[in-house]
Amino acid sequence: MKKEYYLDNGATTRPYEEVVDLVANISKNCYGNSSSLHTKGIEAERIINQAKEDLANILGVKPSEIYFTSGGTESNNMAISGSIMANRKKGKHLITTKIEHSAVLEVFKHYEAEGYETDFISVDESGKVNVDELLRAIRKDTVLVSVMAVNNETGCIQPIKEIGDKIKTLKDKPLYHVDAVQAFGKMPIKPQSFGADLLSISGHKFHGPKGVGVLYIKTGTKIEPVMWGGGHQGGMRSGTMDTPGIAGLALAAKMVYSNLDATGRKISELRRSLLDFVKDKFKDAVIHSEHCSLDHIVSISFPNVKGEVLLHHLEAKGIYVSTGSACSSSGKSKSHVLKAMGVAPELLDGTIRISFSEFNEQEDIEKLKEALEEIIPVITIKNRSKVMR
Amino acid sequence: MKKEYYLDNGATTRPYEEVVDLVANISKNCYGNSSSLHTKGIEAERIINQAKEDLANILGVKPSEIYFTSGGTESNNMAISGSIMANRKKGKHLITTKIEHSAVLEVFKHYEAEGYETDFISVDESGKVNVDELLRAIRKDTVLVSVMAVNNETGCIQPIKEIGDKIKTLKDKPLYHVDAVQAFGKMPIKPQSFGADLLSISGHKFHGPKGVGVLYIKTGTKIEPVMWGGGHQGGMRSGTMDTPGIAGLALAAKMVYSNLDATGRKISELRRSLLDFVKDKFKDAVIHSEHCSLDHIVSISFPNVKGEVLLHHLEAKGIYVSTGSACSSSGKSKSHVLKAMGVAPELLDGTIRISFSEFNEQEDIEKLKEALEEIIPVITIKNRSKVMR
Repeated sequence: MKKEYYLDNGATTRPYEEVVDLVANISKNCYGNSSSLHTKGIEAERIINQAKEDLANILGVKPSEIYFTSGGTESNNMAISGSIMANRKKGKHLITTKIEHSAVLEVFKHYEAEGYETDFISVDESGKVNVDELLRAIRKDTVLVSVMAVNNETGCIQPIKEIGDKIKTLKDKPLYHVDAVQAFGKMPIKPQSFGADLLSISGHKFHGPKGVGVLYIKTGTKIEPVMWGGGHQGGMRSGTMDTPGIAGLALAAKMVYSNLDATGRKISELRRSLLDFVKDKFKDAVIHSEHCSLDHIVSISFPNVKGEVLLHHLEAKGIYVSTGSACSSSGKSKSHVLKAMGVAPELLDGTIRISFSEFNEQEDIEKLKEALEEIIPVITIKNRSKVMR
Repeated sequence: MKKEYYLDNGATTRPYEEVVDLVANISKNCYGNSSSLHTKGIEAERIINQAKEDLANILGVKPSEIYFTSGGTESNNMAISGSIMANRKKGKHLITTKIEHSAVLEVFKHYEAEGYETDFISVDESGKVNVDELLRAIRKDTVLVSVMAVNNETGCIQPIKEIGDKIKTLKDKPLYHVDAVQAFGKMPIKPQSFGADLLSISGHKFHGPKGVGVLYIKTGTKIEPVMWGGGHQGGMRSGTMDTPGIAGLALAAKMVYSNLDATGRKISELRRSLLDFVKDKFKDAVIHSEHCSLDHIVSISFPNVKGEVLLHHLEAKGIYVSTGSACSSSGKSKSHVLKAMGVAPELLDGTIRISFSEFNEQEDIEKLKEALEEIIPVITIKNRSKVMR
């Protein structure tokens, strides 16, 4: 098998071997339904309770505030729809930003079409949300403010604490949701430290299983379920619990956080090595959100290059990166994030995202450098954008 | 380890070893995000497409009509909420039955509270839905009819074809949803043969993984998504695809259907053996839905016995059964199904469900018989119900 250089960890990560083994082990041996009254059920329930405790420890919250979902998209939908439904009397005004993941943005657009007024807050050139604009937008009838912790396309860390600290002081405060899907596992995430009422996490972004996520709901938060049934999870999210997936997610969280500092140092070096090279070899390349980004994500535009062509040339060498985010990449529309940052139209097409995890090594970066040096000159077409349109 | 006699397959099943191994294998080796444009994404997309084809073959439908969800509860919610939302102009009248699973019933109750008028159709003594009453209830403004294929507590097979055949002939026909969560894998399920527009399936009920299900949506069905995001699955259900779980579900479906006849014969014998014994030894025990039930599920009420006490005495011997359904058993409310069937109040407390799968053997039944013969006399308290209340 050809060696793979997987540099698309923002899209999804390779699960830890230990996680895969645990999922298999629980599937084979502890397959009971956690709602069953007998030992096989109680055994499953205990595994789930332990997972809640482990996640609560990592987040610095209470186990009773942890709800399991089918992933980041459901967590975001549940947070937003559930808040809106529960607070219909408070008002019909919503706030989010222009650079959210589509699993947030599209939910807001749905409610806009249903008659809700929504402010989509802008970002500066670096990709950082305009805090003043956001705070000014808050009204008495604002039901919800939703801001991501880290942007998935550029890695830009958002001022969630600054926003949360201000919201806390308001009298008729709106609920505050933080989409931490791209942030969790890459930096400490403590909802209380930035005043979030709701926080979304997805297992497969930090070497956990696919199909499982978490919604943190602060005690006392006015939120309704958006799915009804057997009354699992205190009635907030019905549906037979995915014991193996939940245990796998919790184990991945423990593993990634126990190694956070070492991984951080390693990835920081990988990033520096790549950026030094790009700046040296491709003088006109643009590195997005360079100074506000998490080390884990690098977004680069190469002028007169088509990102998709670059992606396919790289994959021919076993190197996997993405154009924009995986989640919207099959849609092939231009990045709403880069557009919001005011990136020049001719650069939008030529952007790739390189995203690291603890499984990456310097060797991967060397391979990528070598490939870029070889490919970029071959696929660059001067004034391509004029020719193409 | 003590030998286990797992007779609670209506709650959940032990996954096939092959399924667990496939899930692990895909998690380790094909971990790409199916939305990614590179090989790792395409590889995942191919696995998902193959799963769609396999399921479409089994259901006798088109692969494009298969949508993956997080399980039966989501499939039911998506079918019901999605139909209601998309057909708001048609009307605000809904029809379901009194014996649906809570993942259907509670959704209807939610919309009732939102101002929808809902007819909950009654059942006869055997637990079979009253077809005439249901058909009479259909009006011009009826948006949706939802009926389960097999009841989860009693196993009673419902007249879904009779209902579907009639609905087909109507001019302003409502959408027709069939909850096949308890039926799929136990009998042939071909949505077209009974005219269903929507059909729900859950992986863990037929030796597949937990946390993954299917919603069949007939081409042309007027339905809206209830979760928004990256536009996966044609925009009907956003969220990163759970490739390993989806492949596992499809493999389980193939395995269970390739063995359907042999399993059916085996389970039929297990059932007969158990029922003969019960009728012989416990003259006053009541077997519910005896003549309309799938062989896989046996529901028995023992007079003057508390079902929960019996359950715990059985589990002490390594025998696992349930009282009512697992999904509502932790709620401990009395069975709405048995109540709808007119079962005497004093019997409601003394009911257990024994549910088989292909993993069960005659030995399990012998063990159960022996245990019942020993336990029932010990825990029977004459006129208990009077004393207790």
